[in-house]
Amino acid sequence: MTDNSIQQPQSLMVEKQYFTFAQPPNEMVLDSGARLGPITLAYESYGTLNEQKNNAVLVLHACTGDAHVAGHYSDENCSTSKPGWWDNMVGPGKPIDTDRYFVICSNILGSCCGTTGPSSINPETGKPFGCSFPMVTIRDMVRAQKQLIDHLEIKKIMALIGGSVGGMQVLRWCVEYPEMVASAIPLATTTRHSAQAIAFNEVARQAIMTDPDWNNGDYYEGKGPHHGLAVARMIGHVTYLSDESMRNKFGRRLQNRSSVSFDFDVDFEIESYLRHQGTKFVSRFDANSLLYITKAADYFDLESSEGCSLIDEKLSDTTFLVISFSSDWLYPTYQSKTLVSILKKNGCDVSFCEIEAQWGHDAFLLPNPRLNTIIEKFLLRISNEQGI
Amino acid sequence: MTDNSIQQPQSLMVEKQYFTFAQPPNEMVLDSGARLGPITLAYESYGTLNEQKNNAVLVLHACTGDAHVAGHYSDENCSTSKPGWWDNMVGPGKPIDTDRYFVICSNILGSCCGTTGPSSINPETGKPFGCSFPMVTIRDMVRAQKQLIDHLEIKKIMALIGGSVGGMQVLRWCVEYPEMVASAIPLATTTRHSAQAIAFNEVARQAIMTDPDWNNGDYYEGKGPHHGLAVARMIGHVTYLSDESMRNKFGRRLQNRSSVSFDFDVDFEIESYLRHQGTKFVSRFDANSLLYITKAADYFDLESSEGCSLIDEKLSDTTFLVISFSSDWLYPTYQSKTLVSILKKNGCDVSFCEIEAQWGHDAFLLPNPRLNTIIEKFLLRISNEQGI
Repeated sequence: MTDNSIQQPQSLMVEKQYFTFAQPPNEMVLDSGARLGPITLAYESYGTLNEQKNNAVLVLHACTGDAHVAGHYSDENCSTSKPGWWDNMVGPGKPIDTDRYFVICSNILGSCCGTTGPSSINPETGKPFGCSFPMVTIRDMVRAQKQLIDHLEIKKIMALIGGSVGGMQVLRWCVEYPEMVASAIPLATTTRHSAQAIAFNEVARQAIMTDPDWNNGDYYEGKGPHHGLAVARMIGHVTYLSDESMRNKFGRRLQNRSSVSFDFDVDFEIESYLRHQGTKFVSRFDANSLLYITKAADYFDLESSEGCSLIDEKLSDTTFLVISFSSDWLYPTYQSKTLVSILKKNGCDVSFCEIEAQWGHDAFLLPNPRLNTIIEKFLLRISNEQGI
Repeated sequence: MTDNSIQQPQSLMVEKQYFTFAQPPNEMVLDSGARLGPITLAYESYGTLNEQKNNAVLVLHACTGDAHVAGHYSDENCSTSKPGWWDNMVGPGKPIDTDRYFVICSNILGSCCGTTGPSSINPETGKPFGCSFPMVTIRDMVRAQKQLIDHLEIKKIMALIGGSVGGMQVLRWCVEYPEMVASAIPLATTTRHSAQAIAFNEVARQAIMTDPDWNNGDYYEGKGPHHGLAVARMIGHVTYLSDESMRNKFGRRLQNRSSVSFDFDVDFEIESYLRHQGTKFVSRFDANSLLYITKAADYFDLESSEGCSLIDEKLSDTTFLVISFSSDWLYPTYQSKTLVSILKKNGCDVSFCEIEAQWGHDAFLLPNPRLNTIIEKFLLRISNEQGI
């Protein structure tokens, strides 16, 4: 791993940008049939769009991510000085090389990090939407992103990349706008949310919705469902790790004590870790947004009884790199293999790699030399093929 | 599977019994150092103790189980007409054959199904203990069971059998009273609770303890933490199943609807199943008991830094049958294999079987011809060896 202090001079300075569209009466019609507008997308971009406008890489973030993929905010007054969530992957000289590519990431529809979502002000009432916000699907998120890409005058995206719920967006992009996608890298994801994944999301939602401070989603003038949201996040974190990684990272080590407490205080490090993750999350994420985004993931199904939308010859011109992680039990490797075999039916150029990693679902976000090399080489190949 | 209507005439009619000990000033001294007494154990027994008193099989129940292992209550006014929780395994002519063996099961210390626990009346205050109930360990549970076995004048138990937290009790019995145990069958269990298992328990506890109706455990005159307890049970249920069993049993099937709701109602069968399990549990189990028993499981560690208590030549006269299930990810097979290799170091007679089953951790409770045959044959062998 590189020393951050040495990287510092190369570090990207970035700014959050906003794009607003779907002004009434031209609201966006969602999958549910509801109309929503105006819609604002918060996004960031890194590097320079070339003259041919064919060097764009669109990064799709996961459930609770945001547009801040890489670098640091240039505005010193900005709320966070933290580097972006994929700073090990995106930046000058990094695998998604901002010296070569124009990298874009927008916060997903329904989220709470600058993009329109349940915590946004409903222009009709002057108050936050809460649960009057319409349900959004992964397809709705992608259709909103398409508006941004059109606005940037990009006709063809060199590469789409995203893990988890971001990977679902990658696949939905390929289905909706195949002619706009030169290549796609779905990571640690699935073609359809499994019963087990729905189960974990449903428990998380119930933790929030049975918190009396949730108040049917109308809590923005009150305390908000802090307890329920913290528990929901703790559940999430257990599914992001693995038996092996928890054993190696925490084992049965006690937290700052030499023997167990014989009460309900924190005894073990793993308990302290989970409580900390729960509390930290409450300060940065909106409970209603978690409800909406988990539901969008649960609805995601490209292999429904009406037929598999991924089986389409229009996808055959897109080059795919499918990546799974050996210890990911939320979106296990067999689900990526299903994706690969579907794509091959279209005659797609598909590469597949299961990366040995102990870190469970989280592995796609963590520094991993093998992952970096595979992505770097794939993007170089695609950019050469596209004459960039 | 046999037809229950045909079995009916053979069905056991049973009664709950009670045994009280540790009368002050002779309270039981717990692992925590606290004193507790009097202690009442609710128990059931099936079959007849022979003259030699050497045909006893002690069944140890799991986390939220009770003493009602098999048969139906003879008292028509009894709260439940349901058969016992292991009725497919225990009864006349069944693998744990009540025509041959004297089968005993007692509700564990800290529970709420007749045995002393946090919902019991504290004789010093005349009110329920709540969280003033002292913390109990698996060893404390076993030491209480030992009092019952002494009371029944049984010097040597033919077989101990239990899954999950029941398996932990089996192992703790072997460590504490090896001379009293002819054979032991730990099922779907572990020698030490893993970080992942602690993590799920901690999330369940947080769901309860952050419910405002928990009120620091003092809720017996109020509503009680129904929401938190239901969420805790939902978390438990997800860990008892498996990815494969949920896919086969529920998949992405919708619950009584032809299309998704686009709101936060139940959409999928798996959601309905979990909500139902949560609600049902609230009506039968005490939230504080779940806190105490999960903590006892988390504390369970026979391989602590002070040395492995299972490595003891006193255990070498006990015959073991260790059973794991292929899809059990809460107590995976590798943990049973660790147990087997430890026992072999003592020179114990150990048989081990990993049963292929898709039902996850729950597999040990479900009818399974292979499981039945293995247990039946093992018990016959032991009873022959003991000259029964």
